[in-house]
Amino acid sequence: MSDTRRGPYAKSARRQAEIVASATSVFSARGYRGGSLREIAKQLDLSLTSVVHHFPSKSALLVAVLESADSAHADSFQADSQDKGVAYAVLQYVRRNVERPEMLRLLALMAAESSAPDHPAHEWFRTRYEQTIRMLALALRRDQQEGRVANPRDPHGIAESLVALWDGLQLQWLIDPGRRDLVAAMTSALQDLLGPQSLPE
Amino acid sequence: MSDTRRGPYAKSARRQAEIVASATSVFSARGYRGGSLREIAKQLDLSLTSVVHHFPSKSALLVAVLESADSAHADSFQADSQDKGVAYAVLQYVRRNVERPEMLRLLALMAAESSAPDHPAHEWFRTRYEQTIRMLALALRRDQQEGRVANPRDPHGIAESLVALWDGLQLQWLIDPGRRDLVAAMTSALQDLLGPQSLPE
Repeated sequence: MSDTRRGPYAKSARRQAEIVASATSVFSARGYRGGSLREIAKQLDLSLTSVVHHFPSKSALLVAVLESADSAHADSFQADSQDKGVAYAVLQYVRRNVERPEMLRLLALMAAESSAPDHPAHEWFRTRYEQTIRMLALALRRDQQEGRVANPRDPHGIAESLVALWDGLQLQWLIDPGRRDLVAAMTSALQDLLGPQSLPE
Repeated sequence: MSDTRRGPYAKSARRQAEIVASATSVFSARGYRGGSLREIAKQLDLSLTSVVHHFPSKSALLVAVLESADSAHADSFQADSQDKGVAYAVLQYVRRNVERPEMLRLLALMAAESSAPDHPAHEWFRTRYEQTIRMLALALRRDQQEGRVANPRDPHGIAESLVALWDGLQLQWLIDPGRRDLVAAMTSALQDLLGPQSLPE
Protein backbone atom coordinates (compact mmCIF):
# COMPACT_ATOMS: atom_id res chain seq x y z
CA MET A 1 0.00 0.00 0.00
CA SER A 2 1.69 3.17 -1.17
CA ASP A 3 1.12 6.42 0.67
CA THR A 4 1.75 8.40 -2.50
CA ARG A 5 -1.54 7.36 -4.10
CA ARG A 6 -4.45 9.75 -3.81
CA GLY A 7 -8.21 9.56 -3.87
CA PRO A 8 -10.71 7.28 -2.14
CA TYR A 9 -8.85 4.03 -2.82
CA ALA A 10 -5.65 5.29 -1.20
CA LYS A 11 -7.61 6.64 1.75
CA SER A 12 -9.34 3.32 2.23
CA ALA A 13 -6.03 1.43 2.02
CA ARG A 14 -4.49 3.76 4.58
CA ARG A 15 -7.45 3.31 6.89
CA GLN A 16 -7.22 -0.48 6.56
CA ALA A 17 -3.52 -0.38 7.40
CA GLU A 18 -4.30 1.71 10.49
CA ILE A 19 -6.93 -0.76 11.62
CA VAL A 20 -4.54 -3.68 11.12
CA ALA A 21 -1.87 -1.86 13.16
CA SER A 22 -4.31 -1.14 15.98
CA ALA A 23 -5.62 -4.73 15.95
CA THR A 24 -2.02 -5.98 16.11
CA SER A 25 -1.43 -4.07 19.32
CA VAL A 26 -4.80 -5.02 20.86
CA PHE A 27 -4.48 -8.75 20.01
CA SER A 28 -0.85 -8.73 21.22
CA ALA A 29 -1.93 -7.35 24.57
CA ARG A 30 -5.15 -9.30 25.13
CA GLY A 31 -5.09 -12.24 22.78
CA TYR A 32 -7.62 -12.67 20.01
CA ARG A 33 -10.41 -13.75 22.31
CA GLY A 34 -9.73 -11.00 24.84
CA GLY A 35 -9.55 -8.22 22.22
CA SER A 36 -12.64 -6.52 20.76
CA LEU A 37 -13.43 -4.60 17.59
CA ARG A 38 -14.82 -1.89 19.87
CA GLU A 39 -11.44 -1.39 21.57
CA ILE A 40 -9.64 -1.38 18.20
CA ALA A 41 -12.06 1.27 16.92
CA LYS A 42 -11.66 3.33 20.09
CA GLN A 43 -7.85 3.39 19.77
CA LEU A 44 -8.26 5.02 16.35
CA ASP A 45 -11.13 7.30 17.35
CA LEU A 46 -13.31 5.51 14.81
CA SER A 47 -16.86 4.22 15.09
CA LEU A 48 -17.43 0.48 15.27
CA THR A 49 -19.43 0.75 12.02
CA SER A 50 -16.45 2.21 10.25
CA VAL A 51 -14.19 -0.68 11.35
CA VAL A 52 -16.83 -3.21 10.30
CA HIS A 53 -17.04 -1.49 6.92
CA HIS A 54 -13.39 -2.52 6.29
CA PHE A 55 -13.37 -5.82 8.17
CA PRO A 56 -16.79 -7.43 8.46
CA SER A 57 -15.76 -9.71 11.35
CA LYS A 58 -13.15 -9.99 14.06
CA SER A 59 -11.83 -13.18 12.45
CA ALA A 60 -11.43 -11.45 9.05
CA LEU A 61 -9.39 -8.78 10.82
CA LEU A 62 -7.29 -11.45 12.58
CA VAL A 63 -6.37 -13.04 9.26
CA ALA A 64 -5.32 -9.61 7.89
CA VAL A 65 -3.18 -9.08 11.01
CA LEU A 66 -1.51 -12.48 10.65
CA GLU A 67 -0.87 -12.03 6.92
CA SER A 68 0.73 -8.67 7.61
CA ALA A 69 2.86 -10.03 10.49
CA ASP A 70 3.99 -13.02 8.49
CA SER A 71 4.59 -11.61 5.04
CA ALA A 72 7.35 -9.22 6.06
CA HIS A 73 10.71 -10.46 4.74
CA ALA A 74 9.46 -13.75 3.27
CA ASP A 75 10.88 -12.96 -0.17
CA SER A 76 14.40 -12.24 1.04
CA PHE A 77 14.38 -15.59 2.85
CA GLN A 78 14.06 -17.45 -0.45
CA ALA A 79 16.86 -15.43 -2.05
CA ASP A 80 19.17 -15.78 0.96
CA SER A 81 18.69 -19.53 1.24
CA GLN A 82 19.40 -20.17 -2.45
CA ASP A 83 22.46 -17.99 -2.26
CA LYS A 84 24.05 -18.90 1.09
CA GLY A 85 22.06 -21.81 2.51
CA VAL A 86 19.22 -22.32 4.96
CA ALA A 87 21.18 -21.56 8.14
CA TYR A 88 22.30 -18.19 6.82
CA ALA A 89 18.79 -17.31 5.63
CA VAL A 90 17.25 -18.28 8.99
CA LEU A 91 19.77 -16.13 10.87
CA GLN A 92 19.06 -13.14 8.63
CA TYR A 93 15.37 -13.60 9.37
CA VAL A 94 16.03 -13.86 13.11
CA ARG A 95 18.18 -10.69 12.99
CA ARG A 96 15.26 -8.81 11.46
CA ASN A 97 12.78 -10.36 13.91
CA VAL A 98 14.57 -9.11 17.03
CA GLU A 99 13.62 -5.63 15.85
CA ARG A 100 9.90 -6.41 16.18
CA PRO A 101 9.25 -8.23 19.46
CA GLU A 102 5.59 -7.20 19.59
CA MET A 103 4.91 -8.91 16.28
CA LEU A 104 6.66 -12.07 17.48
CA ARG A 105 4.68 -12.01 20.71
CA LEU A 106 1.48 -11.78 18.70
CA LEU A 107 2.43 -14.70 16.45
CA ALA A 108 3.47 -16.84 19.45
CA LEU A 109 0.25 -16.03 21.30
CA MET A 110 -1.96 -16.64 18.26
CA ALA A 111 -0.18 -19.92 17.41
CA ALA A 112 -0.82 -21.25 20.93
CA GLU A 113 -4.41 -19.95 21.06
CA SER A 114 -5.16 -21.26 17.57
CA SER A 115 -4.07 -24.80 18.42
CA ALA A 116 -7.66 -25.30 19.64
CA PRO A 117 -9.51 -26.68 16.60
CA ASP A 118 -12.42 -24.23 16.92
CA HIS A 119 -10.21 -21.13 16.83
CA PRO A 120 -10.74 -18.90 13.76
CA ALA A 121 -7.01 -18.94 12.97
CA HIS A 122 -6.63 -22.71 13.44
CA GLU A 123 -6.57 -23.51 9.73
CA TRP A 124 -4.33 -20.54 8.96
CA PHE A 125 -1.65 -21.76 11.39
CA ARG A 126 -2.00 -25.41 10.41
CA THR A 127 -1.40 -24.48 6.78
CA ARG A 128 1.36 -22.02 7.65
CA TYR A 129 3.36 -24.64 9.57
CA GLU A 130 2.81 -27.23 6.87
CA GLN A 131 3.98 -24.88 4.10
CA THR A 132 6.93 -23.49 6.06
CA ILE A 133 8.18 -26.97 6.90
CA ARG A 134 7.75 -28.15 3.30
CA MET A 135 9.60 -25.10 1.95
CA LEU A 136 12.44 -25.56 4.46
CA ALA A 137 12.67 -29.28 3.69
CA LEU A 138 13.19 -28.54 -0.02
CA ALA A 139 15.89 -26.00 0.77
CA LEU A 140 17.55 -28.38 3.25
CA ARG A 141 17.63 -31.18 0.68
CA ARG A 142 19.46 -28.84 -1.68
CA ASP A 143 21.88 -27.91 1.12
CA GLN A 144 22.49 -31.61 1.83
CA GLN A 145 23.26 -32.24 -1.85
CA GLU A 146 25.62 -29.27 -1.95
CA GLY A 147 27.44 -30.46 1.16
CA ARG A 148 26.36 -27.55 3.33
CA VAL A 149 24.19 -29.62 5.69
CA ALA A 150 25.95 -32.57 7.33
CA ASN A 151 22.86 -34.03 9.05
CA PRO A 152 21.86 -36.96 6.79
CA ARG A 153 18.35 -37.36 8.21
CA ASP A 154 15.13 -36.95 6.18
CA PRO A 155 15.01 -33.17 5.48
CA HIS A 156 11.34 -32.99 6.48
CA GLY A 157 12.24 -34.12 10.01
CA ILE A 158 15.17 -31.69 10.17
CA ALA A 159 12.83 -28.91 9.03
CA GLU A 160 10.40 -29.72 11.88
CA SER A 161 13.26 -29.49 14.38
CA LEU A 162 14.47 -26.25 12.83
CA VAL A 163 11.05 -24.61 13.11
CA ALA A 164 10.73 -25.90 16.69
CA LEU A 165 14.12 -24.45 17.70
CA TRP A 166 13.17 -21.19 16.09
CA ASP A 167 9.79 -20.94 17.84
CA GLY A 168 11.19 -22.16 21.15
CA LEU A 169 14.29 -19.96 21.33
CA GLN A 170 12.20 -16.99 20.25
CA LEU A 171 9.77 -17.68 23.11
CA GLN A 172 12.63 -17.88 25.64
CA TRP A 173 13.95 -14.58 24.33
CA LEU A 174 10.50 -12.91 24.50
CA ILE A 175 10.15 -14.04 28.12
CA ASP A 176 13.62 -12.86 29.15
CA PRO A 177 15.11 -10.55 26.50
CA GLY A 178 17.68 -9.07 28.89
CA ARG A 179 19.36 -12.40 29.64
CA ARG A 180 19.40 -13.94 26.19
CA ASP A 181 21.07 -13.22 22.88
CA LEU A 182 18.63 -14.75 20.40
CA VAL A 183 20.97 -14.55 17.40
CA ALA A 184 23.82 -16.25 19.29
CA ALA A 185 21.52 -18.99 20.64
CA MET A 186 20.10 -19.62 17.17
CA THR A 187 23.58 -19.72 15.61
CA SER A 188 24.73 -22.46 18.02
CA ALA A 189 21.48 -24.38 17.62
CA LEU A 190 21.78 -24.30 13.81
CA GLN A 191 25.35 -25.55 13.94
CA ASP A 192 24.32 -28.41 16.24
CA LEU A 193 21.43 -29.36 13.95
CA LEU A 194 22.96 -28.82 10.51
CA GLY A 195 26.70 -29.14 11.11
CA PRO A 196 29.62 -26.69 11.11
CA GLN A 197 29.60 -26.15 7.31
CA SER A 198 26.05 -24.85 7.36
CA LEU A 199 27.06 -21.22 7.88
CA PRO A 200 29.33 -19.27 5.51
CA GLU A 201 32.60 -18.07 7.11
CA MET B 1 -4.72 -33.57 48.36
CA SER B 2 -6.16 -36.90 49.43
CA ASP B 3 -9.85 -37.62 48.95
CA THR B 4 -9.85 -40.01 51.92
CA ARG B 5 -9.56 -37.19 54.46
CA ARG B 6 -12.73 -35.96 56.07
CA GLY B 7 -13.97 -32.80 57.70
CA PRO B 8 -13.85 -29.13 56.69
CA TYR B 9 -10.20 -29.14 55.62
CA ALA B 10 -10.71 -31.99 53.18
CA LYS B 11 -13.83 -30.30 51.84
CA SER B 12 -11.96 -27.05 51.30
CA ALA B 13 -9.10 -28.85 49.56
CA ARG B 14 -11.56 -30.64 47.29
CA ARG B 15 -13.29 -27.37 46.47
CA GLN B 16 -9.96 -25.71 45.69
CA ALA B 17 -9.03 -28.58 43.37
CA GLU B 18 -12.38 -28.22 41.59
CA ILE B 19 -11.83 -24.48 41.13
CA VAL B 20 -8.32 -25.10 39.75
CA ALA B 21 -9.70 -27.69 37.30
CA SER B 22 -12.44 -25.32 36.12
CA ALA B 23 -9.96 -22.43 35.79
CA THR B 24 -7.67 -24.70 33.76
CA SER B 25 -10.41 -25.33 31.24
CA VAL B 26 -11.54 -21.68 31.11
CA PHE B 27 -8.00 -20.27 30.73
CA SER B 28 -7.19 -22.95 28.13
CA ALA B 29 -10.19 -21.90 26.07
CA ARG B 30 -10.03 -18.11 26.46
CA GLY B 31 -6.57 -17.25 27.69
CA TYR B 32 -5.97 -15.68 31.07
CA ARG B 33 -7.10 -12.24 30.00
CA GLY B 34 -10.20 -13.55 28.26
CA GLY B 35 -11.27 -15.78 31.16
CA SER B 36 -13.19 -14.49 34.19
CA LEU B 37 -13.68 -15.65 37.79
CA ARG B 38 -17.40 -15.31 37.13
CA GLU B 39 -17.29 -17.88 34.34
CA ILE B 40 -15.17 -20.23 36.45
CA ALA B 41 -17.70 -19.94 39.31
CA LYS B 42 -20.60 -20.49 36.92
CA GLN B 43 -19.09 -23.73 35.56
CA LEU B 44 -19.12 -25.11 39.11
CA ASP B 45 -22.46 -23.65 40.09
CA LEU B 46 -20.73 -21.59 42.77
CA SER B 47 -21.11 -17.96 43.74
CA LEU B 48 -18.33 -15.56 42.84
CA THR B 49 -17.88 -14.90 46.60
CA SER B 50 -17.20 -18.53 47.21
CA VAL B 51 -14.47 -18.64 44.52
CA VAL B 52 -12.91 -15.45 45.90
CA HIS B 53 -12.93 -17.05 49.38
CA HIS B 54 -10.47 -19.67 48.08
CA PHE B 55 -8.56 -17.53 45.57
CA PRO B 56 -8.65 -13.82 46.39
CA SER B 57 -7.66 -12.75 42.85
CA LYS B 58 -7.64 -14.07 39.31
CA SER B 59 -3.84 -13.93 39.30
CA ALA B 60 -3.63 -16.02 42.51
CA LEU B 61 -5.82 -18.60 40.79
CA LEU B 62 -3.63 -18.51 37.68
CA VAL B 63 -0.53 -19.30 39.74
CA ALA B 64 -2.37 -22.26 41.34
CA VAL B 65 -3.35 -23.49 37.88
CA LEU B 66 0.22 -23.24 36.58
CA GLU B 67 1.70 -24.95 39.66
CA SER B 68 -0.76 -27.79 39.24
CA ALA B 69 -0.10 -28.11 35.48
CA ASP B 70 3.64 -28.02 35.93
CA SER B 71 4.20 -30.13 39.03
CA ALA B 72 2.79 -33.34 37.58
CA HIS B 73 5.59 -35.83 36.97
CA ALA B 74 8.47 -33.50 37.92
CA ASP B 75 9.83 -35.94 40.50
CA SER B 76 10.03 -38.91 38.15
CA PHE B 77 11.99 -36.73 35.71
CA GLN B 78 14.81 -36.37 38.22
CA ALA B 79 14.89 -40.10 38.94
CA ASP B 80 14.73 -41.05 35.24
CA SER B 81 17.53 -38.67 34.24
CA GLN B 82 19.91 -39.90 36.96
CA ASP B 83 19.17 -43.45 36.03
CA LYS B 84 19.08 -43.44 32.24
CA GLY B 85 20.13 -39.97 31.12
CA VAL B 86 18.42 -36.74 30.09
CA ALA B 87 17.16 -37.92 26.68
CA TYR B 88 15.37 -40.90 28.21
CA ALA B 89 13.86 -38.75 30.98
CA VAL B 90 12.66 -36.14 28.48
CA LEU B 91 11.02 -38.81 26.32
CA GLN B 92 9.25 -40.32 29.34
CA TYR B 93 7.93 -36.86 30.17
CA VAL B 94 6.79 -36.30 26.58
CA ARG B 95 5.04 -39.70 26.57
CA ARG B 96 3.05 -38.65 29.63
CA ASN B 97 2.37 -35.19 28.17
CA VAL B 98 0.67 -36.50 25.04
CA GLU B 99 -2.05 -37.78 27.38
CA ARG B 100 -2.94 -34.25 28.48
CA PRO B 101 -3.09 -31.94 25.44
CA GLU B 102 -5.35 -29.41 27.17
CA MET B 103 -2.77 -28.84 29.88
CA LEU B 104 -0.04 -28.38 27.28
CA ARG B 105 -2.22 -25.95 25.35
CA LEU B 106 -2.73 -23.95 28.53
CA LEU B 107 0.99 -23.84 29.31
CA ALA B 108 1.83 -22.83 25.72
CA LEU B 109 -0.82 -20.13 25.72
CA MET B 110 0.16 -18.77 29.13
CA ALA B 111 3.88 -18.79 28.26
CA ALA B 112 3.22 -16.69 25.14
CA GLU B 113 0.77 -14.37 26.92
CA SER B 114 3.07 -13.97 29.91
CA SER B 115 6.01 -12.85 27.82
CA ALA B 116 4.55 -9.34 28.16
CA PRO B 117 6.32 -7.90 31.24
CA ASP B 118 3.09 -6.66 32.83
CA HIS B 119 1.40 -10.08 32.76
CA PRO B 120 0.70 -11.58 36.22
CA ALA B 121 2.47 -14.83 35.30
CA HIS B 122 5.50 -13.10 33.75
CA GLU B 123 7.78 -13.69 36.72
CA TRP B 124 6.51 -17.24 37.19
CA PHE B 125 7.45 -18.21 33.62
CA ARG B 126 10.75 -16.30 33.68
CA THR B 127 11.79 -18.21 36.81
CA ARG B 128 10.40 -21.50 35.50
CA TYR B 129 12.46 -21.32 32.30
CA GLU B 130 15.56 -20.25 34.21
CA GLN B 131 15.26 -23.12 36.71
CA THR B 132 14.36 -25.75 34.11
CA ILE B 133 17.33 -24.80 31.94
CA ARG B 134 19.69 -24.78 34.94
CA MET B 135 18.44 -28.19 36.10
CA LEU B 136 18.79 -29.66 32.59
CA ALA B 137 22.28 -28.14 32.20
CA LEU B 138 23.44 -29.91 35.37
CA ALA B 139 22.02 -33.24 34.20
CA LEU B 140 23.53 -32.75 30.72
CA ARG B 141 26.96 -32.05 32.18
CA ARG B 142 26.73 -35.35 34.04
CA ASP B 143 25.66 -37.10 30.82
CA GLN B 144 28.63 -35.53 28.99
CA GLN B 145 31.02 -36.80 31.68
CA GLU B 146 29.50 -40.26 31.53
CA GLY B 147 29.82 -40.36 27.72
CA ARG B 148 26.09 -40.37 27.07
CA VAL B 149 25.98 -36.96 25.42
CA ALA B 150 28.34 -36.47 22.48
CA ASN B 151 27.66 -32.76 21.96
CA PRO B 152 30.68 -31.03 23.58
CA ARG B 153 29.10 -27.58 23.78
CA ASP B 154 28.44 -25.67 27.02
CA PRO B 155 25.58 -27.65 28.63
CA HIS B 156 23.64 -24.48 29.39
CA GLY B 157 23.39 -23.74 25.67
CA ILE B 158 22.40 -27.33 24.90
CA ALA B 159 19.72 -27.10 27.60
CA GLU B 160 18.28 -23.96 25.97
CA SER B 161 18.07 -25.78 22.63
CA LEU B 162 16.52 -28.82 24.30
CA VAL B 163 13.76 -26.76 25.94
CA ALA B 164 13.18 -24.92 22.64
CA LEU B 165 12.82 -28.19 20.70
CA TRP B 166 10.46 -29.48 23.34
CA ASP B 167 8.25 -26.36 23.33
CA GLY B 168 8.36 -26.05 19.56
CA LEU B 169 7.62 -29.68 18.64
CA GLN B 170 4.85 -29.73 21.23
CA LEU B 171 3.31 -26.65 19.62
CA GLN B 172 3.43 -28.24 16.15
CA TRP B 173 1.78 -31.33 17.58
CA LEU B 174 -0.95 -29.30 19.34
CA ILE B 175 -1.70 -27.50 16.07
CA ASP B 176 -1.80 -30.69 13.99
CA PRO B 177 -2.03 -33.79 16.24
CA GLY B 178 -3.31 -36.03 13.45
CA ARG B 179 -0.29 -35.52 11.21
CA ARG B 180 2.48 -35.66 13.78
CA ASP B 181 3.94 -38.25 16.12
CA LEU B 182 5.34 -36.11 18.93
CA VAL B 183 7.35 -38.91 20.56
CA ALA B 184 9.00 -39.91 17.26
CA ALA B 185 9.81 -36.27 16.38
CA MET B 186 11.29 -35.68 19.83
CA THR B 187 13.34 -38.90 19.66
CA SER B 188 14.98 -37.84 16.38
CA ALA B 189 15.53 -34.29 17.63
CA LEU B 190 17.20 -35.56 20.82
CA GLN B 191 19.51 -37.85 18.84
CA ASP B 192 20.49 -34.96 16.55
CA LEU B 193 21.19 -32.69 19.53
CA LEU B 194 22.79 -35.10 22.00
CA GLY B 195 24.19 -37.88 19.82
CA PRO B 196 23.25 -41.52 19.16
CA GLN B 197 24.45 -42.73 22.60
CA SER B 198 22.03 -40.47 24.42
CA LEU B 199 19.18 -43.00 24.47
CA PRO B 200 19.43 -46.46 26.02
CA GLU B 201 18.98 -49.34 23.56
